[in-house]
Amino acid sequence: MRDIELVKTYFEGLQNRVCQAFEDREPRKKFSFEEIESETGGLGKPKVIDDGIHVERGAVQYTYSKGTKLPRAATERNESLTDRSFEAASISMIIHPRNPFVPTFHANLRFFLVDNSHWHFGGGFDLTPYYPFPEDVLHWHNTAKSACDIHDPNFYSIFKKNCDDYFYLPHRNENRGVGGIFFDDWNEGGFKKSFELTKSIGDSILPAYLPIFDRRASSKYTDREREFQLYRRGRYVEFNLAVDRGTKYGLQSGRRIESVLASMPPLAKWIYNWKPEPGSPESDLYENYLQSRDWISELSKAR
Amino acid sequence: MRDIELVKTYFEGLQNRVCQAFEDREPRKKFSFEEIESETGGLGKPKVIDDGIHVERGAVQYTYSKGTKLPRAATERNESLTDRSFEAASISMIIHPRNPFVPTFHANLRFFLVDNSHWHFGGGFDLTPYYPFPEDVLHWHNTAKSACDIHDPNFYSIFKKNCDDYFYLPHRNENRGVGGIFFDDWNEGGFKKSFELTKSIGDSILPAYLPIFDRRASSKYTDREREFQLYRRGRYVEFNLAVDRGTKYGLQSGRRIESVLASMPPLAKWIYNWKPEPGSPESDLYENYLQSRDWISELSKAR
Repeated sequence: MRDIELVKTYFEGLQNRVCQAFEDREPRKKFSFEEIESETGGLGKPKVIDDGIHVERGAVQYTYSKGTKLPRAATERNESLTDRSFEAASISMIIHPRNPFVPTFHANLRFFLVDNSHWHFGGGFDLTPYYPFPEDVLHWHNTAKSACDIHDPNFYSIFKKNCDDYFYLPHRNENRGVGGIFFDDWNEGGFKKSFELTKSIGDSILPAYLPIFDRRASSKYTDREREFQLYRRGRYVEFNLAVDRGTKYGLQSGRRIESVLASMPPLAKWIYNWKPEPGSPESDLYENYLQSRDWISELSKAR
Repeated sequence: MRDIELVKTYFEGLQNRVCQAFEDREPRKKFSFEEIESETGGLGKPKVIDDGIHVERGAVQYTYSKGTKLPRAATERNESLTDRSFEAASISMIIHPRNPFVPTFHANLRFFLVDNSHWHFGGGFDLTPYYPFPEDVLHWHNTAKSACDIHDPNFYSIFKKNCDDYFYLPHRNENRGVGGIFFDDWNEGGFKKSFELTKSIGDSILPAYLPIFDRRASSKYTDREREFQLYRRGRYVEFNLAVDRGTKYGLQSGRRIESVLASMPPLAKWIYNWKPEPGSPESDLYENYLQSRDWISELSKAR
């Protein structure tokens, strides 16, 4: 069996597991399902849930693509690989919860095979809270760290820094949220080792997010928290449309636009010159969470 | 008096006229007003109205800027002018009406003076309806054409094409709306003639928009029309953040972010894979208005 077939099987299985987990939490809703074949032999399987009780929008997409020119956005560091024939498998997911106390969650994993010889993995996950809880952030990063540590004790801090560097809005001088882990152009130790690392990270997605989702999804909230969530979702839109490399590539490359923009929040708000009141729960987010911090060490001490 | 002082005076006067017109229509609201001096001797005067009865968000901004390096975004065709010292005066405005039957309206005018010798004007206006009325679109374009025709009978069709070309979302293969007129890098006939043209266009902004605004602002609407307006505002966000040259420049240049993004709609919605029902009022917009058409000739005939 070719290596990429193993990866495809894993990604499709993970897509099913993730969708099942959220369908279990949304008794009245199912993910929509399409199979979209591309002219070049690719296959997209977007699964989207809209307007659920807890999941206001969820998009979990598996994509297999083939082409004669690897897009530049596919490899950050290895320019020599662009414009070569490639196959790619990827899974991306985003959950926009309805409850403002539940953070928005994003993850993706990808595998590129270039000229049927060079290959690399990439991906990771990041968390965007509106009203953050220290124990949630600590759990998120501890889970991420555990997934990395079984492979190499240095990986977590490298991947965490990648994530902080990437999920940053320069025009706001704000991190998107509290980060997580990301790796890219990864082939360290050969296919088997790299795939094991990718699977560890993929397998840790639900254990990282679901406990937070379950703890917060039924929290009571008022218009104030909802308004702030909608306002902060505006930042998510700004990041996706004006900063994110993947979305930019998707918009420019002529990929199916509804798949590219399935990550958009269902509803977002902009308020001119809004600033949180000093000492408010909203200012807690700005002052204590939208920067790069050593969450595990700082939050463990604080407990 | 230096030429740029004449332009600044005209732009500030136009800002006041436009704000007054909308304050007359919003008895309970006034535009906020700030004077923001830049370190290099520039002066920004954003005026913003939020959450009015008819104007859900309106931003009318005057900016005078000075610098040692003309930004690339300031001149499309004349690359030799970039990286030289400059002064610029501009006015930009956007009205996001609450009523879905009132189109969103955008206009800007600008004057660049480079190395105290080269100069050019630019600007124009465009209209983005949700539920378009042929008579409104005809009035809009007739007013634009009249402003151009007194200077040269060829200008309108050139400026209309500029507008159609620019306000286009390639990833959606849709025009942003029904267009209008735009001109750029303009110094034809010398300063006096170019300034007269700019003033004709500036003076036609309110006559072009207000009759439409006044006709539609009290129209009855239901959730259906409101939802569609919020959905279509998503396109406005996509255009501003992912396509628009001015916003991109603003985000990258470190300009005051709240001024750059004052153009964002107050609330916007994305729905996965939404398509208008064939034969519905919403599909009328897609089928008959989001393309480049010869509005004046086609809509005059249809009457």
